[in-house]
Amino acid sequence: MIKNIILFGASGNIGQQCIELLKENKDKFNLIALSVGKNDSQVESFLHSFPTLKKIYSTKKLSELEIKYPNIEFYNEDILKLFSNKDEIVINALSGFFGLQVTLKSIENNLILLNSNKESFVTAGNLINEMLKKSETKIYPIDSEHCAIFQCLENENKVNTLFITASGGSFRNLTLQETANVSLKDALKHPNWDMGKKITIDSSTMFNKAFEILEAYHLFKIKNIVTLLHPQSIIHSMVEFEDGSIKAQLSVPDMKQVINYFLHYPKRISYDRQKNLQFNDLINLELKEIDQNRFKPIKFALKCIELKNSKSIALNAANEICVEYFLNEKIQFHQITEIVEIIFEECENIELTTYQQILDYDAAIRKKTISRIGE
Amino acid sequence: MIKNIILFGASGNIGQQCIELLKENKDKFNLIALSVGKNDSQVESFLHSFPTLKKIYSTKKLSELEIKYPNIEFYNEDILKLFSNKDEIVINALSGFFGLQVTLKSIENNLILLNSNKESFVTAGNLINEMLKKSETKIYPIDSEHCAIFQCLENENKVNTLFITASGGSFRNLTLQETANVSLKDALKHPNWDMGKKITIDSSTMFNKAFEILEAYHLFKIKNIVTLLHPQSIIHSMVEFEDGSIKAQLSVPDMKQVINYFLHYPKRISYDRQKNLQFNDLINLELKEIDQNRFKPIKFALKCIELKNSKSIALNAANEICVEYFLNEKIQFHQITEIVEIIFEECENIELTTYQQILDYDAAIRKKTISRIGE
Repeated sequence: MIKNIILFGASGNIGQQCIELLKENKDKFNLIALSVGKNDSQVESFLHSFPTLKKIYSTKKLSELEIKYPNIEFYNEDILKLFSNKDEIVINALSGFFGLQVTLKSIENNLILLNSNKESFVTAGNLINEMLKKSETKIYPIDSEHCAIFQCLENENKVNTLFITASGGSFRNLTLQETANVSLKDALKHPNWDMGKKITIDSSTMFNKAFEILEAYHLFKIKNIVTLLHPQSIIHSMVEFEDGSIKAQLSVPDMKQVINYFLHYPKRISYDRQKNLQFNDLINLELKEIDQNRFKPIKFALKCIELKNSKSIALNAANEICVEYFLNEKIQFHQITEIVEIIFEECENIELTTYQQILDYDAAIRKKTISRIGE
Repeated sequence: MIKNIILFGASGNIGQQCIELLKENKDKFNLIALSVGKNDSQVESFLHSFPTLKKIYSTKKLSELEIKYPNIEFYNEDILKLFSNKDEIVINALSGFFGLQVTLKSIENNLILLNSNKESFVTAGNLINEMLKKSETKIYPIDSEHCAIFQCLENENKVNTLFITASGGSFRNLTLQETANVSLKDALKHPNWDMGKKITIDSSTMFNKAFEILEAYHLFKIKNIVTLLHPQSIIHSMVEFEDGSIKAQLSVPDMKQVINYFLHYPKRISYDRQKNLQFNDLINLELKEIDQNRFKPIKFALKCIELKNSKSIALNAANEICVEYFLNEKIQFHQITEIVEIIFEECENIELTTYQQILDYDAAIRKKTISRIGE
């Protein structure tokens, strides 16, 4: 049976790789709706590639296309209009807090959700887990670390520790002091993964890893999470069980593999231009527990696990603002972590239980962060 | 419900670790019978530790104990007398071809078998798999590599490749030429594992790995097996699936973990003096495909997969004789592989389908090997 797919964030890095895989699997999936952000230049080519498309959401109005494709429904206001209220698979490849609404709607509608929007879990992990109790939704994490953990947990029980690996980003060999002088251009180069700008910056500050810790906590209900520096990005994460045995998942760094895994789950199917690990030459895998004083966001995340969710919301909102200001060259690299730390320490420690409360708190923290940057 | 256990090979290295674990788990298991070889000094202490023991097999007659313990049945002739024809778990920790009869009897009796006797699979893999079709026996491999693969295969499908790791033994840094001068004492030192003499020699020649390849082939029905040099012995083996994803199992090298895993399978339970992997210091894991010209037994094993079982029986029998002669300092280290290679190349390529045929062929090859050494 062919399954219908809605793809949120089609023009982003993850979205593009989903598009490639969906092109290869037209016998299994119909792409029926997609969203793009400001980068909407590919919408017409998407319409050509996928005659099954019925709905398009874009941030800007696409007047010419609306005239040219009268049978397609175009939206600019409410991204949730892409849902059909039918049986469909949702891919949430939206970046940032904006993606939360899609996660929540997918759960409300009992849909299978392939989710790369880690901010959903960072800001609303408790709310999501409450909603999941009354829903048939399955959430599959489109993130190499969580996909690795998911694979390692197949048919398993009694977990001791989740080991999340981190390449360390662009500046893993610099001291905290040395990061004071790094440029925007340097920060946008990731040694192992080719990703969007926001997540590349989050990788070099290690906020990405902090959010992954919180996502892992909410997804797998395990508090004992250790981050390991692993510069090679080949071991994507590991799970230690009560008997001291560890399972790890390895592969070349390739997000297509992760998306492909969950698209076909529980079957394993090869994909186009698959790159397998080669052992002809010596492969050297290094693992070492991370220094939380060098990479402070890891410390913030572990604190968040023990605190109320206002702290996680603040961590994410302040970081989103700071990264935006850094990308616009209005603050320096090291200020991202410094400002987020101030906001994180100063904000309240309260549990916000509804989407509206979370939305309001997120907005308040953004405002506070902007005002703090202005000082 | 407490389960009855028969332990074959109680005085060997694996047997000793089984004894330790059974002492820790008297609420779950009753040790009701055991066998020892020439090393029978511990039998009385076993009887003290396990009042549940009813039957003892030993190579030599234990006349004093027979008088002192009139309620215990002692055997010296037929090791299969230890079976009760009831529901019991068998641990086959016998070394060498001698252990095959226990494997076959366990299958006949539909028992759960924890098996460390890889020679069973090397010499009679096809026969075992034929018998398993009509039996309810489950065979769990007490071998760190196969246990790793077993764990990686939980709930999985579509395997591409089994990667068996090899420490490389004592002489991994020597060239083939340099091994001409190594002593018995050097060969008995293994860098990572503390094991019996036979298996330590087999590790340094890499015949142990060759037998593991054949065991893995018969256990998991996968022909595509690649051996990776991994000097650290932390990754115990890996499985690559069709989508390029690899699962690995890691731990400190500790056979107790393997035995403990299968004793309690499918539950994970911690054990006494468990050593977990530590990541405070940098852990460096190296992996590289093995050179089959340096480590010829790997090549022999891969050939065996494509040949009839007379070749595997010959490989094992010739090696058992050569290791015995080397341990008695009658041949040199490098001659083990040289003589086995000659026997392996010269022997027939025929399928031996019954236990008696296998037994006869094994005996013939032993005789031929001894005669070849005498030349």
